[in-house]
Amino acid sequence: MELKQYLIEKKRVIDQALERYLPECGGPAGDLIKAMRYSLFAGGKRLRPILCIASAEAVGGSQDSALPAACALEFIHTYSLIHDDLPVMDDDELRRGVPTNHIIFGEAVALLAGDGLLTEAFRLMCSSESLKSVSAESIVKVVELVAEAAGYKGMVGGQVADIQAERKKADKNLVDFIHTHKTAALITASVVCGGIIGGGTGRQVKALRAYGKGIGLAFQISDDLLDVEGDAEAMGKPTGSDERKGKATYPSLLGIPRSKEIQDKLVNEAVEALNIFDDKADPLREIAYYIVRRKK
Amino acid sequence: MELKQYLIEKKRVIDQALERYLPECGGPAGDLIKAMRYSLFAGGKRLRPILCIASAEAVGGSQDSALPAACALEFIHTYSLIHDDLPVMDDDELRRGVPTNHIIFGEAVALLAGDGLLTEAFRLMCSSESLKSVSAESIVKVVELVAEAAGYKGMVGGQVADIQAERKKADKNLVDFIHTHKTAALITASVVCGGIIGGGTGRQVKALRAYGKGIGLAFQISDDLLDVEGDAEAMGKPTGSDERKGKATYPSLLGIPRSKEIQDKLVNEAVEALNIFDDKADPLREIAYYIVRRKK
Repeated sequence: MELKQYLIEKKRVIDQALERYLPECGGPAGDLIKAMRYSLFAGGKRLRPILCIASAEAVGGSQDSALPAACALEFIHTYSLIHDDLPVMDDDELRRGVPTNHIIFGEAVALLAGDGLLTEAFRLMCSSESLKSVSAESIVKVVELVAEAAGYKGMVGGQVADIQAERKKADKNLVDFIHTHKTAALITASVVCGGIIGGGTGRQVKALRAYGKGIGLAFQISDDLLDVEGDAEAMGKPTGSDERKGKATYPSLLGIPRSKEIQDKLVNEAVEALNIFDDKADPLREIAYYIVRRKK
Repeated sequence: MELKQYLIEKKRVIDQALERYLPECGGPAGDLIKAMRYSLFAGGKRLRPILCIASAEAVGGSQDSALPAACALEFIHTYSLIHDDLPVMDDDELRRGVPTNHIIFGEAVALLAGDGLLTEAFRLMCSSESLKSVSAESIVKVVELVAEAAGYKGMVGGQVADIQAERKKADKNLVDFIHTHKTAALITASVVCGGIIGGGTGRQVKALRAYGKGIGLAFQISDDLLDVEGDAEAMGKPTGSDERKGKATYPSLLGIPRSKEIQDKLVNEAVEALNIFDDKADPLREIAYYIVRRKK
C-alpha cells in the first residue's frame, strides 16, 4: 500500500467532516466559533482521527461509523494545543507555521475556544450522527475511555507533571509518566475506540491497545527528537524549545542514540501486536513506521 | 415540605458522592487532583446536582440513578468557575469566602484543574457506576444535552459574549443571550437530564425544560441583583464587581424594580409549568421560590 496517498485521502475525508460538524456561524458567539475553527483548520496531520478510522477498518468496520468519534478526537487534540500554547502554560507564539490561537484572538477567547472544542467533542460522540451507525452501548464505552485518556488520569495529568518537571532533574520514571499520559494516552484511546466502533472482538481490541501504547510513546519520542534535530521550517515552529524550557524529554535524559533505539523497539513491538490482523491492518502498520521517519 | 432540611440532606448525599468519585490521590498528578478537589469542595450550594436529583424524583425515578450525572454537573459548574476566575477572564481572587483556585495553585494548574473537571464530568456520566441504573440510550441523550448546554452553543458561548460585552453598550437582546447561555442553559440541562434519567415521559421532560429555563434565567437575575444589593460577607466575595467591570446585567439595563418584576414572573411561570406533576415535584417548586429570596 501507498501510505502517502492513504494519509492524503483520509485527511480529505476528515477535513470535510470537521467542516460539516463545526460550520461557521454568526451571532454573539461568532468569534468563539471563528477561534475554534482557526486552530482546527491550522494544518494538523489528523493523526488521531486517521488512527481511529484505520482501526475501525482493521476490524472490518466502516469509515463512516468512525467519523464522529474520529473528529471528536481531533477536537480534543486541538483544544489541548490551544491551552498548551497559552502564556501561563508553554507560552508559544507559533505552531505549524502560523500564530497560535491567543496571538490572534486574545487569551480569554483562546481559553474558551479550547473549552468549547473539548465540550463539543463529547457532544459529537453522542450526537444523532454518531447514533446512526454505532450502538448506544459502544458510544458510552468510547466516551468513557476517551474521557479517561484525556482527563486527569491521562493527558491533563501528564500536562501538570510536564509543567511541574520543568527546570527540575527528572528521572526516567517521571519522563515515562509524562510521555505516556501527555501523548500516548489519547493516541491509544484513538486506536482502541476505533476498534470498539468497528465492532472488534475483545482480543482484537486488546491487540489494538498494545499497538496504540507502543506508537503513542514512540510518537512523543519522535516529537522530542524533532525538537533537537528537526528542521524548524518543515515543522513551522522554532526547534530547541524543550531545552530552553528545561523540559523533561527522552533525548535530554538518555541521549539521541538511545532514544532512537527505544523508539525503534516500541514501533517493532507495536507492529508485532498487529500479527492477529490481516492486510486490513496494513495502514496501521505503515503509520507505525511513518511515526519514526516523519519530519514534522 | 421543609426546603432548608431538604437542601441540607441532598447536599450531604452529593458531597459524599463527590468525595467517592474524586478521591485524593498522590503521584505526579497529585497537585492537579488537589486543585480539582479544592474548588469542588469550596462551599458550593450544589444547586445543579440538587435540581437533577429533584427532577429525577419528580418523575418517579431514584436519587441513586441520578447521582453520577448530578455530580458531573457539579464538576462542569466548578470548572466554569475556575476558568471564569482566571486573570485573563474575570480576574477574581475570592469566591465563597476563600481564595480562588489560581491564587492557591497558580494559573497553569488552575487552568488544567478546570480542564480535568470538565473531562471527568463526561467520564463519570458514562462510567459503570452510571450504567448500573441508567440505560446506555439515556446516557447518550444526557451527555449530548449536557455537552450542548455547556459548550459553544451554551455556557461557553455565553461566556464569550459576556466578556466581549464588557464596557460596551449592551441591549436587552444581548443581555438575554448572555444570561440564557452563560447560566440558564446548564441549569435547564440539569433539570432535563434528571427527568430523562428518572424515566420521565416526553410531556414531563418538556414541562421540566420550561421550568428549567424559567428558574435558570431567574437565577442569573438574582446573581446580578445580589451583586448590587447583596451582603458581601454572606456571599464571601466583594459586591459591585459587575459595575466595576462594566458587565451587561439586568439591573444595569432595566433597573432594580423592573428586574425583580421580571424575575417574579419567570419564577411563577416556572412553577406553573410543573402543574402536571404531583407533590413529588414540591422540592422543584420550593427551589424556584428560594432562587428569588436567596442571600448568596
